[in-house]
Amino acid sequence: MCQLLGMNCNVPTDICFSFEGFSARGGRTDEHQDGWGIAFFEGLGCRLFLDAKSAIASPVADVVRRYPIHSTHVIAHIRKATQGGIALVNCHPFQRELWGRYWVFAHNGNLLDFHAETTFYQPVGQTDSERAFCLILETLRQSFPTGKPPLEQLYPVLQEVTATIAATGIFNYLLSDGEHFFTYCSTKLCYIVRQAPFAAAHLIDEDITVDFQKLTTPRDRVAVIATTPLTDNEVWIQIHPGELLVFQDGLPNRV
Amino acid sequence: MCQLLGMNCNVPTDICFSFEGFSARGGRTDEHQDGWGIAFFEGLGCRLFLDAKSAIASPVADVVRRYPIHSTHVIAHIRKATQGGIALVNCHPFQRELWGRYWVFAHNGNLLDFHAETTFYQPVGQTDSERAFCLILETLRQSFPTGKPPLEQLYPVLQEVTATIAATGIFNYLLSDGEHFFTYCSTKLCYIVRQAPFAAAHLIDEDITVDFQKLTTPRDRVAVIATTPLTDNEVWIQIHPGELLVFQDGLPNRV
Repeated sequence: MCQLLGMNCNVPTDICFSFEGFSARGGRTDEHQDGWGIAFFEGLGCRLFLDAKSAIASPVADVVRRYPIHSTHVIAHIRKATQGGIALVNCHPFQRELWGRYWVFAHNGNLLDFHAETTFYQPVGQTDSERAFCLILETLRQSFPTGKPPLEQLYPVLQEVTATIAATGIFNYLLSDGEHFFTYCSTKLCYIVRQAPFAAAHLIDEDITVDFQKLTTPRDRVAVIATTPLTDNEVWIQIHPGELLVFQDGLPNRV
Repeated sequence: MCQLLGMNCNVPTDICFSFEGFSARGGRTDEHQDGWGIAFFEGLGCRLFLDAKSAIASPVADVVRRYPIHSTHVIAHIRKATQGGIALVNCHPFQRELWGRYWVFAHNGNLLDFHAETTFYQPVGQTDSERAFCLILETLRQSFPTGKPPLEQLYPVLQEVTATIAATGIFNYLLSDGEHFFTYCSTKLCYIVRQAPFAAAHLIDEDITVDFQKLTTPRDRVAVIATTPLTDNEVWIQIHPGELLVFQDGLPNRV
């Protein structure tokens, strides 16, 4: 299986602190060493760093830990291969274009009985995850051929295709187009919203503490979403199994 | 305008030497400082590094210069903005999926009178380049809806849509799916094929020499394609305006 890390904020923020702890799980504090990836939205633009090396050994991960890229929507993944070999083509997040927007997707889980034929979007690699992503986008596209609909219309369609896929296995995911940030919990996913009054946070996987009060303004709000909590002195909220949340400006919503 | 750098080889090779000289043109030896990008194919997988910063100031470019990523198909671009603002979303190369393969595209030129309505692939940014890329892929997809055809069938369709677009302005490009490597010269594009007996090469933009004989085997063959020559002690071959070449295993072909 794998682990997920996501971030959604009301102002562009760097993810260096969270990624430091998260990436340690890619071979040091945990066994997710079959590749990793991270996507940063900057407006409608998106950059995606992928590597089939473990996150602790990858020179590219080293840059991501050190170089503060400011973004409002971030999706990261460390991989422990189940379906599909260890190869760049099977690293998450995956990216496609829909309605003139980039969509990015990462999955934690295993879909043992999932089969889907898609024509519009086709998987390049061999993972169940990329096949599921293709089906999600194909379903959205067929439901709304002319462009992105209002969230109230998009949400139930996404919820339905998600439920169909989730019935075939474990399906925790993060999905974003740089505007909305969807998180689906099938078995395990939690989040924390950091906002004023900010405090210090201490990582579980590294002995590192950051005092967010020194780095933020009172208006900042940052949601961090992860498979399991990244810090040991904050209260993380478990998302309920079966729940599809939509984060915007650092706040979770149910539509 | 912009500059292009491509590489196609018969064995995975790193592009550190060529990128060192090329990226110097992103603000030091030339004025192409409005962003940059590079795509590396590894099998069917592809990783794309993009940055709206200049190639000489970008920490990500620094990693690409120092970290030898081995690939058989590489496309790089440094940007001097014409159409579309300085933003990540307008940085080349662009990437889309077609027939279960990633396609990557970078353009040097300016298409002043180019207008195209595409439905399947839609541009995310504001460049003429991404619009042209979308039209190319849409044309290929409509011509061959079930999958990638043999090169002999694909080539004339690509040639025709290329000619249509090139009629509207300057349109030098690099295009690849990790199998074929297409280069089109509208006004300015050249290449060199390095093979045994290998010799030393000296960059134009940096005082750096590499002796390829020490780094290669007698069977290696590497084609480097660029807007203008990168070395001053080798003979670069100008591609003729209007010529669409297909590189495979480091050799150019006309179909």
